[in-house]
This record gives sequence, C-alpha cells and structure tokens, in this order.
Amino acid sequence: MSDPKLDLEIVRFVAAPRAKVWQAWSDPHILKQWWCPKPWMTEVRAFDFRSGGAFHTFMSGPDGGESDNPGLFLEVVPRERIIWTSMLVAGWRPATPWLGMTGIFTLADEGSGTRYTACCLHKDDADRKKHEDMGFFDGWGIMIQQLQEVAQSLP
Amino acid sequence: MSDPKLDLEIVRFVAAPRAKVWQAWSDPHILKQWWCPKPWMTEVRAFDFRSGGAFHTFMSGPDGGESDNPGLFLEVVPRERIIWTSMLVAGWRPATPWLGMTGIFTLADEGSGTRYTACCLHKDDADRKKHEDMGFFDGWGIMIQQLQEVAQSLP
Repeated sequence: MSDPKLDLEIVRFVAAPRAKVWQAWSDPHILKQWWCPKPWMTEVRAFDFRSGGAFHTFMSGPDGGESDNPGLFLEVVPRERIIWTSMLVAGWRPATPWLGMTGIFTLADEGSGTRYTACCLHKDDADRKKHEDMGFFDGWGIMIQQLQEVAQSLP
Repeated sequence: MSDPKLDLEIVRFVAAPRAKVWQAWSDPHILKQWWCPKPWMTEVRAFDFRSGGAFHTFMSGPDGGESDNPGLFLEVVPRERIIWTSMLVAGWRPATPWLGMTGIFTLADEGSGTRYTACCLHKDDADRKKHEDMGFFDGWGIMIQQLQEVAQSLP
C-alpha cells in the first residue's frame, strides 16, 4: 500500500515485547516521554484513543521553537495498528495543517521483540520531499529509539 | 456538536421508512439516482462502504459543467449514521479537495418516516460561507427531496 513517491516509511526491530510497545503508545503520560526527539518536549493536549478521537500534540524546543500538531485518530486496533491524520480535527472537522499527513503505525511480533512500521502518507511528491528535507528519517528514527527505551523500562 | 459559524445543516422529515432511506444510501446504483440535483448526473467512481473506504462521485451537467469529488467514508453505522470527508482519499491519504468538508448524515425514526439530518462541517467561516453562497441549501435540499422520491419507489 505504501507508495515510495508519496510516502516515507521506517521499519525497525524494537527490542521490547509488543504489549510494552503498545502500552507506551496508548498512555499519553508515557507517549509524551518518547514522542519527539529530546531535548524537545511534548505536551499532549488531546488523546482520545479511538477512531474519531482527537490527538493533539504540542512540541517545544530549548531554543524557543514550537510545533503545534492537532489531529485525529482514524483507526485504533489494539496491539496492531494506529492511524492518525493531521487533515482532520476533533469531531471529524477539516483541519488547516502546516503539513497534511497520515501516519500509519503497525506492530507485529518478531522473535522476542516487535517489528514496528511507521509510514507517513502525503498528498503529493512535493509534500513528501518537504517532509524528508525537514529531517523525517532522523526525527522519526530517534522517536522509535526513544520508544524502545521507554518500552523496555516499563514494569 | 454542530457549530453554526462553521457548519451548514439541514434537518428534514423524509416520508419513507428508515430502512428504505438506508437502502437508497447504501447501494451506489440507487445513490446515483438522487445524489445530485437533476438534470446533473452522478457517476459513482468508488463506493467502498465502510470506515476508511473510498467514496468518489463525479458529477456532470447538461452545460458541460463537471464536479469531481473523491473522498473517504470515515464512519458507517448501519441505518444510523454515515460520515464522509473530502479531506482524505483511498488508504487514508491526504487529499487536495476543491473544498474541504466533512458530511455527517444521521437517520432516526420519526412516525412512519425518517428524520434525516445532513450536516456539513468546514474548517473555517470562509469555507462555510463559500459553500453557502454556492447554493448549499438549495442543492442539498433538492438531494433530500430526490432521496425521498427514490426511497419511496423502492420495492
């Protein structure tokens, strides 16, 4: 389903059981610990973890930079898949995103750990390239590394 | 949930049982008979009637006018509710709509007929006004009248 001309995809082995990775995703107090590359900080402003539920993160950096990302969960399949978009906000309302994207996160068992796939869909090649040039692979790669560390630390 | 500054809403009594109204909505061969004000014609290019399924209509008028409306079903609750948006297309991909909107259609029993609510959500007041000025209430009102006629004709 992923289209290399429009999408950006990262597939990683995460050395933590799938249940722990899911736990790190499904609790906003845990999610904020790994959601953006440190030392940037995440504030979770909405986390209604169901199809049609608001998902709003606000990130801020030590240099005063900010990134406001309101959006919506489109699909939540426990321990398997989360789909989120910036194109809609609470109540399915059309949004005005700084970048139109849909993130599809897939979890599968792989040995004693988790095969984690993060795919970001865009409307066209220009948006894909813009996102890649902003440092998508570094940024989302660090997020996954942080996700692994947090998942491993869960009791 | 409807916000009068951002949304356009029509509430009508449809003189046909809810099961017939649902039937007229859920079958693309029937939907095309009432979807746009005649003599404009509707071609249903995609109708995957489930959450995340493509919904694409293409309308053409006798004067050569055309309106292309790719989109996605966000929620389908049998006999109760259909939610559709122009902000996403097949596979949850961000779209490039000529007008960003989410349509929420609600069916409820009312006497021997159906209380039919059609609500169109926009991202801001400018889009709401643009849609209203394009003749939203006339257009969607005629659609509902046509929907009633088609629902009444079903065996």
